[in-house]
Amino acid sequence: MTNTLQSMDFRLSYADCDPLGIVFYAAYYGWMERTYNEWVFSGGLTNDECIARWGVNTVMRASGLEYFVPAVLFDGLSCRMRLDAIGNTSFTVIFDIVRRKDEVQMAKGFMTLVTVNRSGRPAEVPGELATLLRGDSRATEIAV
Amino acid sequence: MTNTLQSMDFRLSYADCDPLGIVFYAAYYGWMERTYNEWVFSGGLTNDECIARWGVNTVMRASGLEYFVPAVLFDGLSCRMRLDAIGNTSFTVIFDIVRRKDEVQMAKGFMTLVTVNRSGRPAEVPGELATLLRGDSRATEIAV
Amino acid sequence: MTNTLQSMDFRLSYADCDPLGIVFYAAYYGWMERTYNEWVFSGGLTNDECIARWGVNTVMRASGLEYFVPAVLFDGLSCRMRLDAIGNTSFTVIFDIVRRKDEVQMAKGFMTLVTVNRSGRPAEVPGELATLLRGDSRATEIAV
Amino acid sequence: MTNTLQSMDFRLSYADCDPLGIVFYAAYYGWMERTYNEWVFSGGLTNDECIARWGVNTVMRASGLEYFVPAVLFDGLSCRMRLDAIGNTSFTVIFDIVRRKDEVQMAKGFMTLVTVNRSGRPAEVPGELATLLRGDSRATEIAV
Repeated sequence: MTNTLQSMDFRLSYADCDPLGIVFYAAYYGWMERTYNEWVFSGGLTNDECIARWGVNTVMRASGLEYFVPAVLFDGLSCRMRLDAIGNTSFTVIFDIVRRKDEVQMAKGFMTLVTVNRSGRPAEVPGELATLLRGDSRATEIAV
Repeated sequence: MTNTLQSMDFRLSYADCDPLGIVFYAAYYGWMERTYNEWVFSGGLTNDECIARWGVNTVMRASGLEYFVPAVLFDGLSCRMRLDAIGNTSFTVIFDIVRRKDEVQMAKGFMTLVTVNRSGRPAEVPGELATLLRGDSRATEIAV
Repeated sequence: MTNTLQSMDFRLSYADCDPLGIVFYAAYYGWMERTYNEWVFSGGLTNDECIARWGVNTVMRASGLEYFVPAVLFDGLSCRMRLDAIGNTSFTVIFDIVRRKDEVQMAKGFMTLVTVNRSGRPAEVPGELATLLRGDSRATEIAV
Repeated sequence: MTNTLQSMDFRLSYADCDPLGIVFYAAYYGWMERTYNEWVFSGGLTNDECIARWGVNTVMRASGLEYFVPAVLFDGLSCRMRLDAIGNTSFTVIFDIVRRKDEVQMAKGFMTLVTVNRSGRPAEVPGELATLLRGDSRATEIAV
């Protein structure tokens, strides 16, 4: 299992749940995006910063979710992000949605992002970004 | 009763409803915005177009909703927009949320928008915009 | 290409778009759900009705989207639903998100639903439901 | 100024912001609801619990927001809930949306909820609930 890059706790509220009393199928996508953006923001990796540092930014190529256990109103959950794989011009991060009280995995999501240059063409994933995605903090310190 | 400026039909789906099986309190705000934007778009009144025509655009100052009857999953509703009032530098539009099968009013919302100039300072509501908001199509034709 | 089972037109509004001025990655999931539910509702296939007719209802197993072209504010789009595949106890529907003015495909999504019995265990997809999913209206008429 | 009953910190992400790069006008309603529900949940005041304790639950009567300063992507905000007023059969809570780094108030929202009995008729706000809403913890301890 790879390192957890970012984690976000949240409680399911009325906004997340549907008339069946369970989580709405698209609700986790919002939490995945918040978790990813917190990592981006705290790491100085916003699109503006990526362009300034490496001349590339990222665009979403694909997203998805598998649902294992239906979460219900007021469930306390965590969204935990980790690296799945890095390709030449893209990378995929995984989001484990876990119920905190018993660590049961409710769902598993992913986002695949492509790194593109200023012209919008796919460009190699910068080495420093790859290091950060691998969560190898020692290497990161050296790189920075 | 003033003229209906724009109307949008929609059916409540799982995304709009909560575990009580009724509409989530914030769901109508999304439909109000879509209805307003359809009026803006079809009338050539996007922020870019307003700046080009009159040197002003609009910013949201306030919004609100009163709830009369709780709508339920699969209800077929209409969101109907009409003018409430025009002030010196702002205007308010009202949104009647109506159940189509029996014309029962489920909720009533509003948005107050301020017209601001390129510096972001409140500016007079342009006369042509006021005419369009009043839904007086004859006057509009003369103005245009 | 299989038959289009349901189609829904919509225009991207502020609610759907992000600070980059393009569609928010999760926005299409809402439109996929609305399109699916319109098919469910108009065909008499709500969970209550499915339980009454066949003793089964459906639960979401997976969802996903691939993004091809970034749609922008005020784009007029269609979400078109068609069958992908029917398995023993599940089926997958595809949603083609198309820009109406030039029929360019912006994205392609899917939902996989499992049919479960009253105890929540996977159950065979009812033959009539399979017929409806295949969009074979002649067979449907015979079946009904 | 009355006591803060509940506070929630969040960072504006792509999901909350629109193509103008500022917060979408309806985004704060979601955070208001989460803040309110956290207070409800942590205080043992869910609808089920209120019915069991006092024979009443709450339904939303009105909501609204005034916008003072447009928040932008990645702003770190707090949503702070406090009592506005308690009537015979309803109460109103206020939500101050504040930018954490400089305590500037970006917006101010409210929710008015009606207490209804098992038949759905307006019923007096229970004394204990009023005490909790006033945030008077000493009285609460006595009451409990």
